[in-house]
Amino acid sequence: MATSRTVELEGHIIDSGMMQRVFGLVMDMGGSFHVETFEVGTRKDETSYCQMTVSADTEAELQPILHELHQTGANIADPVDAQLEPAPRNQVVPRQFYSTTNHPTQIRHDGEWVEVEQIEMDCAIVVEPDQADGTRAYTKVLNAIEEDDLVVTGEAGIRVQPPERPRDASGPFGFMQGGVSAERPSESLIEDIATAIVETTESGGDILAVPGPAVIHSGARDDLARLVDAGYVDYLSAGNGFAVHDLERDLYGTSLGMDVEDLDHPRKGHKHHIYTISQIIRAGGIEEAIEADIIDEGVMYQCVRNDVPYVLAGSIRDDGPLPDTITDAVEAQNAIRKQAHEADLVLMMATLLHSVAVGNCLPSKTKVICVDINQATVTQLADRGSGQAVGMVTDIGTFVPRLADEILDA
Amino acid sequence: MATSRTVELEGHIIDSGMMQRVFGLVMDMGGSFHVETFEVGTRKDETSYCQMTVSADTEAELQPILHELHQTGANIADPVDAQLEPAPRNQVVPRQFYSTTNHPTQIRHDGEWVEVEQIEMDCAIVVEPDQADGTRAYTKVLNAIEEDDLVVTGEAGIRVQPPERPRDASGPFGFMQGGVSAERPSESLIEDIATAIVETTESGGDILAVPGPAVIHSGARDDLARLVDAGYVDYLSAGNGFAVHDLERDLYGTSLGMDVEDLDHPRKGHKHHIYTISQIIRAGGIEEAIEADIIDEGVMYQCVRNDVPYVLAGSIRDDGPLPDTITDAVEAQNAIRKQAHEADLVLMMATLLHSVAVGNCLPSKTKVICVDINQATVTQLADRGSGQAVGMVTDIGTFVPRLADEILDA
Amino acid sequence: MATSRTVELEGHIIDSGMMQRVFGLVMDMGGSFHVETFEVGTRKDETSYCQMTVSADTEAELQPILHELHQTGANIADPVDAQLEPAPRNQVVPRQFYSTTNHPTQIRHDGEWVEVEQIEMDCAIVVEPDQADGTRAYTKVLNAIEEDDLVVTGEAGIRVQPPERPRDASGPFGFMQGGVSAERPSESLIEDIATAIVETTESGGDILAVPGPAVIHSGARDDLARLVDAGYVDYLSAGNGFAVHDLERDLYGTSLGMDVEDLDHPRKGHKHHIYTISQIIRAGGIEEAIEADIIDEGVMYQCVRNDVPYVLAGSIRDDGPLPDTITDAVEAQNAIRKQAHEADLVLMMATLLHSVAVGNCLPSKTKVICVDINQATVTQLADRGSGQAVGMVTDIGTFVPRLADEILDA
Amino acid sequence: MATSRTVELEGHIIDSGMMQRVFGLVMDMGGSFHVETFEVGTRKDETSYCQMTVSADTEAELQPILHELHQTGANIADPVDAQLEPAPRNQVVPRQFYSTTNHPTQIRHDGEWVEVEQIEMDCAIVVEPDQADGTRAYTKVLNAIEEDDLVVTGEAGIRVQPPERPRDASGPFGFMQGGVSAERPSESLIEDIATAIVETTESGGDILAVPGPAVIHSGARDDLARLVDAGYVDYLSAGNGFAVHDLERDLYGTSLGMDVEDLDHPRKGHKHHIYTISQIIRAGGIEEAIEADIIDEGVMYQCVRNDVPYVLAGSIRDDGPLPDTITDAVEAQNAIRKQAHEADLVLMMATLLHSVAVGNCLPSKTKVICVDINQATVTQLADRGSGQAVGMVTDIGTFVPRLADEILDA
Repeated sequence: MATSRTVELEGHIIDSGMMQRVFGLVMDMGGSFHVETFEVGTRKDETSYCQMTVSADTEAELQPILHELHQTGANIADPVDAQLEPAPRNQVVPRQFYSTTNHPTQIRHDGEWVEVEQIEMDCAIVVEPDQADGTRAYTKVLNAIEEDDLVVTGEAGIRVQPPERPRDASGPFGFMQGGVSAERPSESLIEDIATAIVETTESGGDILAVPGPAVIHSGARDDLARLVDAGYVDYLSAGNGFAVHDLERDLYGTSLGMDVEDLDHPRKGHKHHIYTISQIIRAGGIEEAIEADIIDEGVMYQCVRNDVPYVLAGSIRDDGPLPDTITDAVEAQNAIRKQAHEADLVLMMATLLHSVAVGNCLPSKTKVICVDINQATVTQLADRGSGQAVGMVTDIGTFVPRLADEILDA
Repeated sequence: MATSRTVELEGHIIDSGMMQRVFGLVMDMGGSFHVETFEVGTRKDETSYCQMTVSADTEAELQPILHELHQTGANIADPVDAQLEPAPRNQVVPRQFYSTTNHPTQIRHDGEWVEVEQIEMDCAIVVEPDQADGTRAYTKVLNAIEEDDLVVTGEAGIRVQPPERPRDASGPFGFMQGGVSAERPSESLIEDIATAIVETTESGGDILAVPGPAVIHSGARDDLARLVDAGYVDYLSAGNGFAVHDLERDLYGTSLGMDVEDLDHPRKGHKHHIYTISQIIRAGGIEEAIEADIIDEGVMYQCVRNDVPYVLAGSIRDDGPLPDTITDAVEAQNAIRKQAHEADLVLMMATLLHSVAVGNCLPSKTKVICVDINQATVTQLADRGSGQAVGMVTDIGTFVPRLADEILDA
Repeated sequence: MATSRTVELEGHIIDSGMMQRVFGLVMDMGGSFHVETFEVGTRKDETSYCQMTVSADTEAELQPILHELHQTGANIADPVDAQLEPAPRNQVVPRQFYSTTNHPTQIRHDGEWVEVEQIEMDCAIVVEPDQADGTRAYTKVLNAIEEDDLVVTGEAGIRVQPPERPRDASGPFGFMQGGVSAERPSESLIEDIATAIVETTESGGDILAVPGPAVIHSGARDDLARLVDAGYVDYLSAGNGFAVHDLERDLYGTSLGMDVEDLDHPRKGHKHHIYTISQIIRAGGIEEAIEADIIDEGVMYQCVRNDVPYVLAGSIRDDGPLPDTITDAVEAQNAIRKQAHEADLVLMMATLLHSVAVGNCLPSKTKVICVDINQATVTQLADRGSGQAVGMVTDIGTFVPRLADEILDA
Repeated sequence: MATSRTVELEGHIIDSGMMQRVFGLVMDMGGSFHVETFEVGTRKDETSYCQMTVSADTEAELQPILHELHQTGANIADPVDAQLEPAPRNQVVPRQFYSTTNHPTQIRHDGEWVEVEQIEMDCAIVVEPDQADGTRAYTKVLNAIEEDDLVVTGEAGIRVQPPERPRDASGPFGFMQGGVSAERPSESLIEDIATAIVETTESGGDILAVPGPAVIHSGARDDLARLVDAGYVDYLSAGNGFAVHDLERDLYGTSLGMDVEDLDHPRKGHKHHIYTISQIIRAGGIEEAIEADIIDEGVMYQCVRNDVPYVLAGSIRDDGPLPDTITDAVEAQNAIRKQAHEADLVLMMATLLHSVAVGNCLPSKTKVICVDINQATVTQLADRGSGQAVGMVTDIGTFVPRLADEILDA
């Protein structure tokens, strides 16, 4: 005897691909469906509505199907409350905890829909009922879970709203269905990216820059520094290596210490790299080195001078590290998370590791621009379920100068 | 008035490319040279000897030339002692400290040549004179430097011995001059790698495995586990992600949680990933989970059962992490360093980050096998100044089963 | 005053993504739509039907929208005949000619729907009315068009049927929505590919092998030869370089002439390559060289011995070429086209150029397996609108032996 | 009883790596050597000289060693004449024919050294003794060999001069030892490339442009057209696809016909592509279409207007082709060869196939600049034994505009 549940979808569910994914998922996972109601939006500004019954042979087979449908935006129809269960221990979630998507999400509590705060994918939802300002719900990553936190379990009483295809296709942020905009002429795409950055800043939004060491090696350092100085960077998230290369350029000029990300040339100029770290340690940190006039230009210099908060995360391949670098991965992730939640637009530049770390914390509504010479990197980052991502496969050393010219000299 | 210094080279300096690099470096860096003596080995088993004077316009120009020559194996001729200077503070090296290569190195102290222990590139050399067992010299990374450590500075009194071209070209470890062995038929290269692994183990050597998550996703988990169980893995160095995917496969079977390294699919199966971590946290760790019969197969299981020490290093893109994961980058790097120094052969499998971290700590005499689907990764790793590296561009999911068959079923 | 046209879609139009593409296309191209009828298949085996009116401001804007909708499977509803116009000259098509997709297509003539023969993308459709066996319609590439050929123009009276998502997801040929099956464990995917090949052969289908030179260099030559000899290859399409490397291996053994596709090592062993061609020219061709016992093993040898027709296409980077090589690009394309139209399953192995040439001629219903070490190559080939394509990113030198073992030793 | 031969090397044989390769080759191939004389250049402007005896167990083993040494610049010492043998038939070379490198080469005839004309790799050398202007020697590709041509065989009486490391390292053309200049800041490298182009043109040299379709798709068409118009392109070598995309942009504007090289999007805009070809066919060719005012801008337009000769080579993946396209591979290769031999500087832009075809015909002294988004392509092309090659991994859509600005607006 089959078991079944009714789910519903609402919005521009056809052209956003939601209906297709829902039908496909049910069939891929061995279930079946029966469409009860289907009201199609007859014009492009009208939304559609679908109510369907999804069945499987056993409850055990139905559960994963419902889970996947949920993540896609098909919400269980029954107007029940979300189930809550206390966490049995610190960092331990209840069995069947609800794992979030990066899409806007609501949970039902005491008959009311509550918006989940700080939305981020792969988290648990913790509910605090009956606060002064009503019930609160927010995400927590696994290691932040505390014993007795009320964690949402199951799939009922939760609504997910994936991004919809914009009705108007202007601007660089099209509705990317798993792909990189290789079809755009490069120059015109840079212009559109410049416009998006300027508009974000002018409307009071915050821009998070995520640069890799290649920004320095490829000669784009001064142009990124100009953008920081002109107020187009509100936060910076990078690694120890990026900062050291930037500072080293100031201390030792441009002739040494050049290389591709992750893999410094085994010999050339590495002594300067280490001595740079040593000097900053002696000064007490980057800010102190600037105060002591040891450093007087570059990206880190402009960040300090313009009060742009930066996170430097450590990694197992670092030299040093600098005193400013957060070596604990969990602590660094939390610092990155904070910046990611503030950002309205993220500019990822030639770094896979840091871009992934930032991308993991972003809600799907944040605009993302990802630039890298490696097509695979761009595809992966621009295609993480974000409705507003644009990728560009190009050399960071020609991209940043062109972008800075476009923004600052226009 | 030019300044000059005499350097000497000895060994198979022509066919190892040392002479070429020395001549090239001097010219690239604006110096000039005068060969005083050149005794060429007239047969392939005879070494050559070259003494030459290197000049530059100023001492400031000469210093970097001498530094680079050193790293290449051209040692300053004058039989003087290495200069020692106390470190001014913790984590601060003296100006002009000597930065190591990954080649065997000796320093001269009180007229005697002392072998530098724990050789590793980009380190300082600390000397402890007049110990019970004579003078000791060993490498220290920057963050291990303590105030008043006696650090070697300058270039005099130091000898470096880069690996020489083997006189006999048999075996997989040819003398790679910056390249990957794409010219070898795949099957025969796997056979040679198997032979090198078996020979290392049979002669009592230690093998360090460095696997990425793709080993699990591509279906090679059982074959790697078989190799651990059969005693062909002595140490394992990986990331939190590798271990979680391995454990998850045991807890949830093979149908979910699949993906490429670094970038888990944003939705599918991620809940299992997090719940796996949660369960291991509840048990107290991997070993405890095995004792509690929660885990009874896979790579981590075989490591615990066969007392194979493992290092799981954290990263800013991790979920969790597991209780076993070392989240502090400096601490993790030290744990990796310890394994790297013990290893006689390192097998890097489809992970850039961890391979680089391990590779940074290896002396050039350690055998390295690097397998990855990405040619750029293989080239970079196999080409870090190592005299005994072999790279193979292939799918880890077909490589590991073929390797295990070759080793275990032969 | 807007202009509009009614189109209709039928089949599994939701889960095949057709509805989504149709809505998206209209909006991207500045049009609007009004859904007149939407009958949704309420269960997974029921098809859906949609009739909608598509509008644009001018006929000039509407035409390209209708063209794109067509290619996607949205057919103009009005039951009119397809328009026919004579070609004005040889190799010149009428303005507004209909350019084919690779999907099954019908045109309406004299009130009857006629299946278009030899379907292939980017061709014109030529109609021969009133033949003995009724009206015929078939594709012609541009250079085959003859003056006065009746060519279909416009969009009316044409029906396109894109492949639908299979209702049953078993087997390697899933419904690929723009991607490569990186999520499949390698070994299990090879088993599925072996099964598909065996089933095709056993059911009387024809297999077309498209190998690049890397098949030889990587050591997989003997295994491909075994597959030819055992009857699992019915046609072979390759380049001059593939054949020469195969023959050279027979003449000069395995020690020389190794390299990656397209870019032979500038020096090593090239003399053998040229002398191999010279010897075959002297013999009069490959078949003659085999008769003269100059060649007695390898892929080309087994093709001749087993009467497997082969096409060797020339290219501007060839040496020689062999007497068997077709140097004229148009003639070679026609020979490839003939093989492609016969094939039921195509196995593309490590060659971009020849795989694209073959792929251009394939109808979307032909099964395609594409194996290459380069992810970009695999993605591009497996994603050319084919409903039955499977891609695998792996080393051809381990893939072919595993495949041959799976097929022949099972 | 071993057999041996004396070879000699002269020039900057240490820092050009010649000595290293010679020693390595002998050992790799199982031979041994004895250095008879070694006179080292004691300063950077002095050349070195080495005479050595190379031995192997049998003549059969010695021959391939001598062959490889030759290609590296180690010439057989005995002052004998080169051996000549008549070609037995058209397109058939004598056994043991000498296969050329791309380096300057001389052969000895009647006791005199004769420079080999039209040097190109992988060719035979044909000698015409006793001409009016003395003995002539020149290269012939295999398919140009005629019966009774006097072809050089063996290794004696031939001198090869590989490029030497420039004594002065300024300019973009360093001495690349198998690598791409990833260490150069992008902007400064573009400036240096611009300078090399301007200098070549100003000194009366000829520039050959080799563009792929991506030049058009990425929006760089107008900038390349500007360079042609300003006289910085003397020859153009491309494929049918490049020309069609260029012409199509003129006929249909910029909104369609977009894509990456080799793999046109299966559907979008392809009709325009084919109709463009159809229109040019109707006009009779590109020049005729320009005369008829059908085409009035773009790269092909500027080539015709400025009398820049172009070669359009056909390929098996072409549509059409255009009437101007040479469809026969051998004929096309000969046309390319003629251009390649005239060129002083070659600018390869985002096309592997055509760059390889051109590169195959180039002597090693020709300057080569190779720009591509794909690192593997750049490495392969910049590393074909050329002494004057520079590679740049970047987006052609930002490179060409920057280059044109640098050259034209400076």
